[in-house]
Amino acid sequence: MKVYIIGIGLIGGSFALDVKENFPEAKVFGIDASEPHISKAKELKLISESAVMADLKNADVVFIAVPVDASIEVTKKVLDEIGENTLVIDAGSTKSKLCAAVSEHAKRRNFLAAHPISGTEYSGPEAAIPDLFRGKTNIICEVEKTAFKLQERAMEIFSKLGMRIRYMDPESHDRHIAYVSHLSHISSFMLGKTVLEKEKNERDIFDLAGSGFASTVRLAKSSPAMWSPIFQQNKENVLETLNEYIHNLTQFKTLIENEDFEEVFKEMERTNHIKSILNGIN
Amino acid sequence: MKVYIIGIGLIGGSFALDVKENFPEAKVFGIDASEPHISKAKELKLISESAVMADLKNADVVFIAVPVDASIEVTKKVLDEIGENTLVIDAGSTKSKLCAAVSEHAKRRNFLAAHPISGTEYSGPEAAIPDLFRGKTNIICEVEKTAFKLQERAMEIFSKLGMRIRYMDPESHDRHIAYVSHLSHISSFMLGKTVLEKEKNERDIFDLAGSGFASTVRLAKSSPAMWSPIFQQNKENVLETLNEYIHNLTQFKTLIENEDFEEVFKEMERTNHIKSILNGIN
Repeated sequence: MKVYIIGIGLIGGSFALDVKENFPEAKVFGIDASEPHISKAKELKLISESAVMADLKNADVVFIAVPVDASIEVTKKVLDEIGENTLVIDAGSTKSKLCAAVSEHAKRRNFLAAHPISGTEYSGPEAAIPDLFRGKTNIICEVEKTAFKLQERAMEIFSKLGMRIRYMDPESHDRHIAYVSHLSHISSFMLGKTVLEKEKNERDIFDLAGSGFASTVRLAKSSPAMWSPIFQQNKENVLETLNEYIHNLTQFKTLIENEDFEEVFKEMERTNHIKSILNGIN
Repeated sequence: MKVYIIGIGLIGGSFALDVKENFPEAKVFGIDASEPHISKAKELKLISESAVMADLKNADVVFIAVPVDASIEVTKKVLDEIGENTLVIDAGSTKSKLCAAVSEHAKRRNFLAAHPISGTEYSGPEAAIPDLFRGKTNIICEVEKTAFKLQERAMEIFSKLGMRIRYMDPESHDRHIAYVSHLSHISSFMLGKTVLEKEKNERDIFDLAGSGFASTVRLAKSSPAMWSPIFQQNKENVLETLNEYIHNLTQFKTLIENEDFEEVFKEMERTNHIKSILNGIN
């Protein structure tokens, strides 16, 4: 099996590691706009060789893991280049615009739109880790538009890598993921900003911050090059979540201002209920 | 050494475990308003015996770990009861109001105001864990108001438990901690609320949420009985942090609305700088 990975960062590189581990006969090639990324990916043995777009006609699988502002053009170009039996998987965090962009492509049936809900706050080839996808949910959109044989090939890979599969239309995906992923990143970035602005003497932050702060602000380490295009592509949904979040914060602030601490208590008690939901997530 | 712990929850119970581990000759007694907490604490061997306030005249150390709305009255009562050489430590998350309330007490020199920056999102005696305080910062306020010999006794305990000591006046403590702890809890609770409200079908949250969401919303599991009084006591500082947080979120929202994704990128890039600060926190 010849696997070509476009974008050898955290997701692409981790996918490469798992493919090599689970399919010993597979040969993994890398394509990346960044020459240092390619060198690093070779050095870390994420990929065997670098490749170019014209090589894709020989590919069994192409896995696209680039920032979402690049993925539409990259995916179209990939579909133009591949052979009849190549499976193309995109792993980006937004799905509506991409699915719309390729809907009329002659090779649409070679394409599978996916979103493995996995990652860390780090990026680049050095961030790749084995078994990143094990036990994680992988959302697949418009599965019916992918050729059945290529669906099977994808499922075999996802299954070996340990992913749980869920099916969803791209619009629902983007709406839901705005709440459980995109909003978390903004809340974390703005929390980080608020504290950094206030505490010019960084030593003070460091000394006073505990594990709770570290946990809520962890996502503020994430890559702007990845996240800015996500907010752009999912603008309407992200704005909706932000409006609701700001509304809830403002309401909570008013409760404190009015010294209605009975209601402050109740607000928190109602939200405590999230415990039972979170217990299944790691 | 006779150690009396008032409030055998996460903090009091964890302190009990560490005292028993590090001072094998110590005898640990428990006082708690909740009878089930006392029973549980005995069953879990956090304490040897339960006690009452009148017993405190024999105490070498009293460690107060109750919600901050109770701690002022509890601390005053404790100071009324103790002997000449008893050390009284309070471990609550706000310090200004408590320090002011005991400033004129005849036994003020027996009292040490502390805040070990440690804990988890869980509460109650079952949440107690060994070594909770190791490597964590312990803020001490108004150290000069505590008798020198009792300071020494406190430092010996804190040192054996592995805490890093920092000194701060109570007002600075409350102002800084509003940013790095109290605000994080509100941002997390309101994030949890926003998502819960939207996703009535909880199965969808569970399936789509990854480790990033779990991390930012973790503190929404925290105890309302602990946190509502903290927001009450530190109202002015908490409102200031909330105003700035809401302001930053609104500004970020406006950037997205105006499609100024260059500035969205820069905002995140500037905040990325928090990486270097967070690396030392676990």
